[in-house]
Amino acid sequence: MEIRIGLVGAGWMGKTHIKAFINAFINFGPKYGKPVFETVSDVSAEAAKNVCKQLGFSKWTTDWKEVVQDERVHIVDIATPNAFHYEVAKAALENGKHVYCEKPLSLSAEQSIELAKMAKQKGVVNYVGYNNVMNPANAYIKDLVQSGKLGQIIGFFGIYSQDSLLDPNLPITWRHINKYSGSGALGDLGSHILSVSQFILGNIESVIALPKTVIKQRPVSPGSLELADVENDDLITILAKYENGAVGTILASRVAPGRKNYLTYEIQGTEGTVYYSLERMNEVKVYFTSDNSADRGFRTVFLGPEHKGYSAFYPAAGIAIGYNDMKVLEAHELLSAVSKGTPYICDFEFGAKIDQTVSAILESAAKQNWINVRNKGGVTI
Amino acid sequence: MEIRIGLVGAGWMGKTHIKAFINAFINFGPKYGKPVFETVSDVSAEAAKNVCKQLGFSKWTTDWKEVVQDERVHIVDIATPNAFHYEVAKAALENGKHVYCEKPLSLSAEQSIELAKMAKQKGVVNYVGYNNVMNPANAYIKDLVQSGKLGQIIGFFGIYSQDSLLDPNLPITWRHINKYSGSGALGDLGSHILSVSQFILGNIESVIALPKTVIKQRPVSPGSLELADVENDDLITILAKYENGAVGTILASRVAPGRKNYLTYEIQGTEGTVYYSLERMNEVKVYFTSDNSADRGFRTVFLGPEHKGYSAFYPAAGIAIGYNDMKVLEAHELLSAVSKGTPYICDFEFGAKIDQTVSAILESAAKQNWINVRNKGGVTI
Amino acid sequence: MEIRIGLVGAGWMGKTHIKAFINAFINFGPKYGKPVFETVSDVSAEAAKNVCKQLGFSKWTTDWKEVVQDERVHIVDIATPNAFHYEVAKAALENGKHVYCEKPLSLSAEQSIELAKMAKQKGVVNYVGYNNVMNPANAYIKDLVQSGKLGQIIGFFGIYSQDSLLDPNLPITWRHINKYSGSGALGDLGSHILSVSQFILGNIESVIALPKTVIKQRPVSPGSLELADVENDDLITILAKYENGAVGTILASRVAPGRKNYLTYEIQGTEGTVYYSLERMNEVKVYFTSDNSADRGFRTVFLGPEHKGYSAFYPAAGIAIGYNDMKVLEAHELLSAVSKGTPYICDFEFGAKIDQTVSAILESAAKQNWINVRNKGGVTI
Amino acid sequence: MEIRIGLVGAGWMGKTHIKAFINAFINFGPKYGKPVFETVSDVSAEAAKNVCKQLGFSKWTTDWKEVVQDERVHIVDIATPNAFHYEVAKAALENGKHVYCEKPLSLSAEQSIELAKMAKQKGVVNYVGYNNVMNPANAYIKDLVQSGKLGQIIGFFGIYSQDSLLDPNLPITWRHINKYSGSGALGDLGSHILSVSQFILGNIESVIALPKTVIKQRPVSPGSLELADVENDDLITILAKYENGAVGTILASRVAPGRKNYLTYEIQGTEGTVYYSLERMNEVKVYFTSDNSADRGFRTVFLGPEHKGYSAFYPAAGIAIGYNDMKVLEAHELLSAVSKGTPYICDFEFGAKIDQTVSAILESAAKQNWINVRNKGGVTI
Repeated sequence: MEIRIGLVGAGWMGKTHIKAFINAFINFGPKYGKPVFETVSDVSAEAAKNVCKQLGFSKWTTDWKEVVQDERVHIVDIATPNAFHYEVAKAALENGKHVYCEKPLSLSAEQSIELAKMAKQKGVVNYVGYNNVMNPANAYIKDLVQSGKLGQIIGFFGIYSQDSLLDPNLPITWRHINKYSGSGALGDLGSHILSVSQFILGNIESVIALPKTVIKQRPVSPGSLELADVENDDLITILAKYENGAVGTILASRVAPGRKNYLTYEIQGTEGTVYYSLERMNEVKVYFTSDNSADRGFRTVFLGPEHKGYSAFYPAAGIAIGYNDMKVLEAHELLSAVSKGTPYICDFEFGAKIDQTVSAILESAAKQNWINVRNKGGVTI
Repeated sequence: MEIRIGLVGAGWMGKTHIKAFINAFINFGPKYGKPVFETVSDVSAEAAKNVCKQLGFSKWTTDWKEVVQDERVHIVDIATPNAFHYEVAKAALENGKHVYCEKPLSLSAEQSIELAKMAKQKGVVNYVGYNNVMNPANAYIKDLVQSGKLGQIIGFFGIYSQDSLLDPNLPITWRHINKYSGSGALGDLGSHILSVSQFILGNIESVIALPKTVIKQRPVSPGSLELADVENDDLITILAKYENGAVGTILASRVAPGRKNYLTYEIQGTEGTVYYSLERMNEVKVYFTSDNSADRGFRTVFLGPEHKGYSAFYPAAGIAIGYNDMKVLEAHELLSAVSKGTPYICDFEFGAKIDQTVSAILESAAKQNWINVRNKGGVTI
Repeated sequence: MEIRIGLVGAGWMGKTHIKAFINAFINFGPKYGKPVFETVSDVSAEAAKNVCKQLGFSKWTTDWKEVVQDERVHIVDIATPNAFHYEVAKAALENGKHVYCEKPLSLSAEQSIELAKMAKQKGVVNYVGYNNVMNPANAYIKDLVQSGKLGQIIGFFGIYSQDSLLDPNLPITWRHINKYSGSGALGDLGSHILSVSQFILGNIESVIALPKTVIKQRPVSPGSLELADVENDDLITILAKYENGAVGTILASRVAPGRKNYLTYEIQGTEGTVYYSLERMNEVKVYFTSDNSADRGFRTVFLGPEHKGYSAFYPAAGIAIGYNDMKVLEAHELLSAVSKGTPYICDFEFGAKIDQTVSAILESAAKQNWINVRNKGGVTI
Repeated sequence: MEIRIGLVGAGWMGKTHIKAFINAFINFGPKYGKPVFETVSDVSAEAAKNVCKQLGFSKWTTDWKEVVQDERVHIVDIATPNAFHYEVAKAALENGKHVYCEKPLSLSAEQSIELAKMAKQKGVVNYVGYNNVMNPANAYIKDLVQSGKLGQIIGFFGIYSQDSLLDPNLPITWRHINKYSGSGALGDLGSHILSVSQFILGNIESVIALPKTVIKQRPVSPGSLELADVENDDLITILAKYENGAVGTILASRVAPGRKNYLTYEIQGTEGTVYYSLERMNEVKVYFTSDNSADRGFRTVFLGPEHKGYSAFYPAAGIAIGYNDMKVLEAHELLSAVSKGTPYICDFEFGAKIDQTVSAILESAAKQNWINVRNKGGVTI
């Protein structure tokens, strides 16, 4: 059996998706059908053509509608800039396709909820690419939390900081303009930490946020003296109350000097603490109050075959997995779901909950007040 | 010349103060007068007597008023439980003494402001024991900030977590009851991180806080089945806006598993970041965007003779200073101020500003709203 | 153009090689011909058949000679157990094939030198799979050394420790028997650290070693009460003199509790030090004496686009590469060499030098004396 | 009761000793007699006079013989340059004094053995200042080893590196000339790591060493163009066999860029590993194979009241002790021994064993061969 894939968006992320399908198959296959690359579209004909040739698609186009309407395509894979996710995903659902949409699902809670409901109705596989959820470290940590090994959960303290946009000479892009991005560091980076939080602790009840735009204007193009306004947060700090009674803090920044891919979080419970940093992707730090007190301390646990997902790559602990391997696990889960109906985590409802939270955070920042998450988007998911 | 000290409170902290005076003298002396230990008082006659003998006081008493009225005493050193600081400090000032008061100055912004004004009026040395300020690491970091090496400051992210009160079997103490403590983890631990923040970044403008009492009741005595209510925060999370435009988050907890003396903070500027953790007291991590990009990363700088205060202890870098050495530097600064009129940082005004911030944080937690710090205590300092 | 590959040995390492070819092509291609998988052989028909199907070979066999004689095959890829490398590589060379041989080249310096000479004579691409050499971290470190940024090199201090064979209940395998393995931890793990050392510092002049067999006997099969002798080193410590005047220590162990993939090394020069650990694969620690002394410390540099090889995977620093990515870079270098004649590092001569060093180490351990490396194998390479 | 101390040598180390006595008394006293500072001698009258005044001695002299002959003196404390230790210690023993000698005991195994025998004969307290032995971390680690928690010991891997003498412009001193120093980094730094090794693992059986002089000549005085030869090791690497069957490596360097006070060691046993670095003095890393494999990793244990010696300073874990605190524990052990006859570790025999090992290491370096430790100094201790 073949699983035929149509790709919308032939940039770095689109290629990353296709490479992930290839590696999922060579690591896990042939447990399920072989991914076959049917059509690729991009607004740039050259980009589409190159990806077509390099990664072995059957054909290419500059019209994404051809992809969603292609009868041979089983999965529509959306890797466009964020502002187009909603429209393409909706059309793909309308054509009865399975949909694999890079995060975020849309730029608003309303649209994301609409897509989640529609996907449920259609009964297709609907997958949103919060790849960090698939990190074997997070599966291990969720297990620590759910097994009760950390006791009752007290708090979640998460950060996702980078310095990718620290340089004030970098020109303005779609990321700085809300009609294209929805928000700044919050949607780009904060949503990843929210995905981990949603996965492990469940729903956030209410939030209050303090954003900051550090670089208020940027050149309209490299080297230009003409400046345009940055409309959204370079940095945002958030307090959160979880439905399970835990408290939380979240920090997202795209202007944090020295922080490269600093997705970190700490979860404290009454019987232990766990800490993780994506910059040291292969190690989890965990502390158990039950250890003998003279010998008690944070343990640095290297990922290994005991941790779900890892053994797809290596037979022994401590051999480093990398970022792309998270995407491989994501592609694997998706291919399993499509070919065998296995359950998966990051469905559109999961994505819509994150967008509800993002929406509440933005409102709390604007109103400088605590905002409930549940009714964002006009509906409770 | 002798500098004669009267001590009120002969517990662990009182002894720590006296040991610090002794070591200040043997490390820095004889640049100034020799500290001489005149009178020690404690509600426990035995405690007073023991300290008198062990540390070489001339006499002891159970009546603290004898200390503040003792004509031979130059400095009244207050190391009682927090609830008594105000009364003793006030009486000492009324008697024209120099006052060395362990933190906090009092349990309310009002009282602290009163003491600060009174001390200024009297013209005596007035010192509050925020010992972390004296850490050579903090002097180095303040210099990094003030020299502009980190650019314009964006944010301050501070934590002080311990697990000292995590065990639910530990009985209730004065720390859990507001009339004795004012607040929970906030006043006990959070105030230390506030002191560092005040020292390096200056005033906080407004705050909003989310507290949590994790262990809601505790035995009235060890092993007792009778329970009493814990009245204050085991854990508190705070967002802050600084007067200089920076944003901040602060977390304080006395129930954080595995965190022993986890006072950490990160300061990000437009040209660099600095990170510090008291658990690794002798190293500062600093990142400069100006470093050549291929070789750029956080530097782990070990404290050494270039960093103010360190050379009192050791002639070369990397030889570990310890917690007590911060108190030695504090005692040294105080002895210098008394004998030579040198300037010092942690005066009563400094302490009152921290108590104003604590007061605003408590109000923000109660009202679930942003609160301005300035007018707490009914007056602007 | 196609580059047709014949694989000898269909175990974990063989599959790892083929996956590396696939990923090299999808990351770097189509700069060179597409790797095509022609024939796979294994003593196990089932293993050969499975790999044939899963990874897309045209045919399979149980007779490796069919692979080396296959006229369609351009590259013979050898991933058998170590003891068979020599025979297969020799036959492949005799048939005029390019050869990609997993490390080590053979079990003796003599045989490796013979292969190296033969390969040079034949003028084919001859590549030995010391994958750590291809780590972008090592390329960066070699550049630090060769550029003179660390001054004159004083010493190299390397370790490769694992605890994979710590459990005494694990049965005896070919790794414990010298006619199959040549040596123990030395050949298995130590050779990797020697490859890095050879790459960065060049030839070792003389060595003295102290080996230790910690678990002297093992069950002949899982759970058996019958025991067989372990013939070689579980752990070995080595002193080394380099031709460039530097001194070195090397430690290799397969019985080091808690060490999972602990390949670490430190290189000290008169103007700086660099440290690396494969367990934290994405970060290099480097210290420059030229930094301003108050701000001087080891820098934690995350791998990024400035470091050779990294940008094949990610566009920004701090996104984790993993172990397999080293094999991808190796496959890339090999495919480039075959299709475009580009130079490469890990040729058979490079591999033979490592085997010469291993041979001298074993002799030094037996004779308990310093041994010169150069004349091992009866000849100077 | 008073314990009267006479100090020979009023430099930094002499003052450090006296401060340690003062702090031992104020931390542990009055369990034993009060240390009283009777006489201080130094070749520099000014140094002697200053220490006399600052630290409260009764009198001073430039003639050390007055100290050892002073009838009021109970303990002769020797803190001269190394070359004078033997002569002063011998005279002190002849006068029946307790002797506290800074390390090393002498510059040769012969002289140290002579002192050890003489001290035993005299029945006095004889203490050599290997302060690292008194570190609470080492007491904890020794307990881990001796309790069998790490299984059978396999290896000891120790380093003591600094960069204090890396700068080639620093002029020649007594440390570079063998008649004053005996050896270079080996005696100065390596002896400290040997002391820890001797304390925890016991005797070394045989050694082989490779030394290196990195900076072969130095100015005779600061800025001078006249150069003098450096006679001894800037760096030395050593392989060792222990009497208990373990193997070891030792590295000592005074020219290791970035290493400030890098005394580190790792002990591996069949059931666990422990690692320690003095640069992070308050934490010990320990790994137990008995931990559940999914949650297994090195634990970072902060020193606390459970670890011997720590509770003298602080009531809770994670409050940093510093370098001087090791000297305080040393002074405490000595005062206990003198006043109450309690046992102690670092006696002259312990010191002589280290000097025997140093002697064997030097011989092995000269002869480039393995040397037995036992018969160094012409006798077996």
